[in-house]
Amino acid sequence: MTQINAERLLADMRALARFGACGTGVDRVSYSEADQASRRWLRDRMTEAGLTARIDRVGNVAGISARADRAVVIGSHTDSVPRGGWLDGAMGVIYGLEITRSRIEQGLDRTLGVDVVSFQDEEGTYLSCLGSRAFCSDLSDADMARASGPGGETLNAAITRANYGGSVWVRDPQRHKAYLEAHIEQGPRLEAAGLRLGVVTGIVGIRRFRITCGGQADHAGTTPIALRRDAARPLIHLAHWVHTEVATLGGADTVWNVGMMMVRPGAANVVPSESEMVVEFRDTSLEILDRIEQGLLAQVHAMDGRAGVTVKAQSIASSLPTLMDARLVTLGDEVACALGEPSMRMVSGAGHDAMIVGRVLPSVMLFVPSIGGRSHDIVENTTDTDIVLGCQALAALVTRIEGLDL
Amino acid sequence: MTQINAERLLADMRALARFGACGTGVDRVSYSEADQASRRWLRDRMTEAGLTARIDRVGNVAGISARADRAVVIGSHTDSVPRGGWLDGAMGVIYGLEITRSRIEQGLDRTLGVDVVSFQDEEGTYLSCLGSRAFCSDLSDADMARASGPGGETLNAAITRANYGGSVWVRDPQRHKAYLEAHIEQGPRLEAAGLRLGVVTGIVGIRRFRITCGGQADHAGTTPIALRRDAARPLIHLAHWVHTEVATLGGADTVWNVGMMMVRPGAANVVPSESEMVVEFRDTSLEILDRIEQGLLAQVHAMDGRAGVTVKAQSIASSLPTLMDARLVTLGDEVACALGEPSMRMVSGAGHDAMIVGRVLPSVMLFVPSIGGRSHDIVENTTDTDIVLGCQALAALVTRIEGLDL
Repeated sequence: MTQINAERLLADMRALARFGACGTGVDRVSYSEADQASRRWLRDRMTEAGLTARIDRVGNVAGISARADRAVVIGSHTDSVPRGGWLDGAMGVIYGLEITRSRIEQGLDRTLGVDVVSFQDEEGTYLSCLGSRAFCSDLSDADMARASGPGGETLNAAITRANYGGSVWVRDPQRHKAYLEAHIEQGPRLEAAGLRLGVVTGIVGIRRFRITCGGQADHAGTTPIALRRDAARPLIHLAHWVHTEVATLGGADTVWNVGMMMVRPGAANVVPSESEMVVEFRDTSLEILDRIEQGLLAQVHAMDGRAGVTVKAQSIASSLPTLMDARLVTLGDEVACALGEPSMRMVSGAGHDAMIVGRVLPSVMLFVPSIGGRSHDIVENTTDTDIVLGCQALAALVTRIEGLDL
Repeated sequence: MTQINAERLLADMRALARFGACGTGVDRVSYSEADQASRRWLRDRMTEAGLTARIDRVGNVAGISARADRAVVIGSHTDSVPRGGWLDGAMGVIYGLEITRSRIEQGLDRTLGVDVVSFQDEEGTYLSCLGSRAFCSDLSDADMARASGPGGETLNAAITRANYGGSVWVRDPQRHKAYLEAHIEQGPRLEAAGLRLGVVTGIVGIRRFRITCGGQADHAGTTPIALRRDAARPLIHLAHWVHTEVATLGGADTVWNVGMMMVRPGAANVVPSESEMVVEFRDTSLEILDRIEQGLLAQVHAMDGRAGVTVKAQSIASSLPTLMDARLVTLGDEVACALGEPSMRMVSGAGHDAMIVGRVLPSVMLFVPSIGGRSHDIVENTTDTDIVLGCQALAALVTRIEGLDL
């Protein structure tokens, strides 16, 4: 059983948070000076811990536990959104560092290695989950060539600028048994339930559509309803459909959002000539995602052209759901229980590197609570005791995996 | 039977349209240089026609047919919206000039005078229907003191700047028998029906509400539906209610509009924290207006506070409907019929000076078609033959009123 050093864990997390410090949070977008400096710092900590560490060509910081033939990978990302929180990604990386360091100290690293990684650009400043995609060889030269970031800089220009060199660190099927990622929940469910550990059963797929309607502007007093080509009316009908019908087509964990609505020209006394909204829905079941998409598009199709108004739907984002490994989910529950903390099984409504890695390696995520459900903001936080608990649970999970034939 | 001079009518209309000419339309907002110059021109045409003409203190141009004790008032307004049409208001004023001029020439002005007026600021650049409100003594000093226009200039400053002087021309109950206003329809109904003359039975009242909802922004992936305070959801429900239920609460001529909708912060993956829309509805029946308002406010009340979202409605405009005089409406039908043109009875969905004057004098409006239903735009137009027809109908209506005890 690995004993982690809680004070060292917290000290390393606070040291990392000084790179790009921004109030109580961090501004450490990928390929920024702060991001590059934090990666060099992390590589040096890995080397100190006894790992064979390097920064790969795209910026992934990888620390290899060299004395074992087989290893689990523990990691997440150290890049942030602009003015982001200090825990989002960073916590999961330092968990890996602390667990592998403790295992080396305690002589457990011959039984099963823990390779640690900070993936590059999970937040998508240039290309969402760049580092984990590269690790999984799930990235073409064309994908890379298309991507660009702040100020229009291309991803390839940013890679050249950072000049890490060498090759990309890729998954080794003979070596890597599993991928484990701990993260703050970024939502309110653990806090609402009074629980401290979440075990993620799957990461949702996302479908996002832009709906646009085109009609004709007219005087809203002098134009009879029957002669109008009101572009707001079908949009309102569709938005109402989303909020009343998606629940019946989806499952218990399905979420949806009408996050953007706009009507033009936007005057009280002018019949709208154009309208637009963005609808998204998320679930871990492809079948549910397909069913909702079909329902929505059938509505759009049925309304298109009615009363002289065009109604069009355009897919603007689509990602596949990823299920976590069922055996690892069960082990997650068991280690939580053994620590005296009943776990909550939950889906992750946000994307993570585990969404990518989970397609090629048995994976699981552990969540700790987000205070007030807040993240992607400098106020993001979790109590120190929950940070330590999460690391203890993850260390215990590695111990359970030692004997497992994955 | 008054014979009007069609060429002179059209020539005067084109002469007036040169003041503030703007492409095929006019930009002649009240108290602008173009507006002031056009009023002096109009006063001089009235004087030439044999009327006792003056510009009153607020800018109403009034021409009195001095040889009769009793008179009908014919008029409308010569101010325009910015980049407006050449007919909106102006046509009705020049109709009055041509009819009274023809009656004087034909010696009919002793039987029944026709006083002509161009009311000031019907379009509300400073204060909607300012001139007709002043004429009806329906305007307090406080109303005037509150009003302001372009660049923040107060109405009282504009009046001082224009420096017309004198008193306000007010309704004379002993003299004035009726008010007649001709106007372009500003809508598509006559054109759609293939008819050339509309007789207005009433001018709608307008109720306008701003609905605002306040919730909380959250991650749209990680926040379960049940834990959201989604500010868009009740707004969408209410907008849908408007488009499905107002028709059942209203009558055949009720119109409504959701002309403005907005959701903040407006991102696909963020649960909306605020939302806003503007709803209006119009009808000539107070009972219907009250019924719809009660229905809407009951919905707002029922939703307020549900799922942690505040829902508020604020009345931002309310005007009373005005019914036209039933005897004059019947006469309007008769003169149209006598000209071989079956009329369409219709409500006016837009406000007019007759909405104000109709509350204190028996009034009626005649409409001619708007090409393509367009107005409040420089493309606004009507055929010359329809312009002439409308003036002939109005002249015939004056003849019918001669013998009428109103």
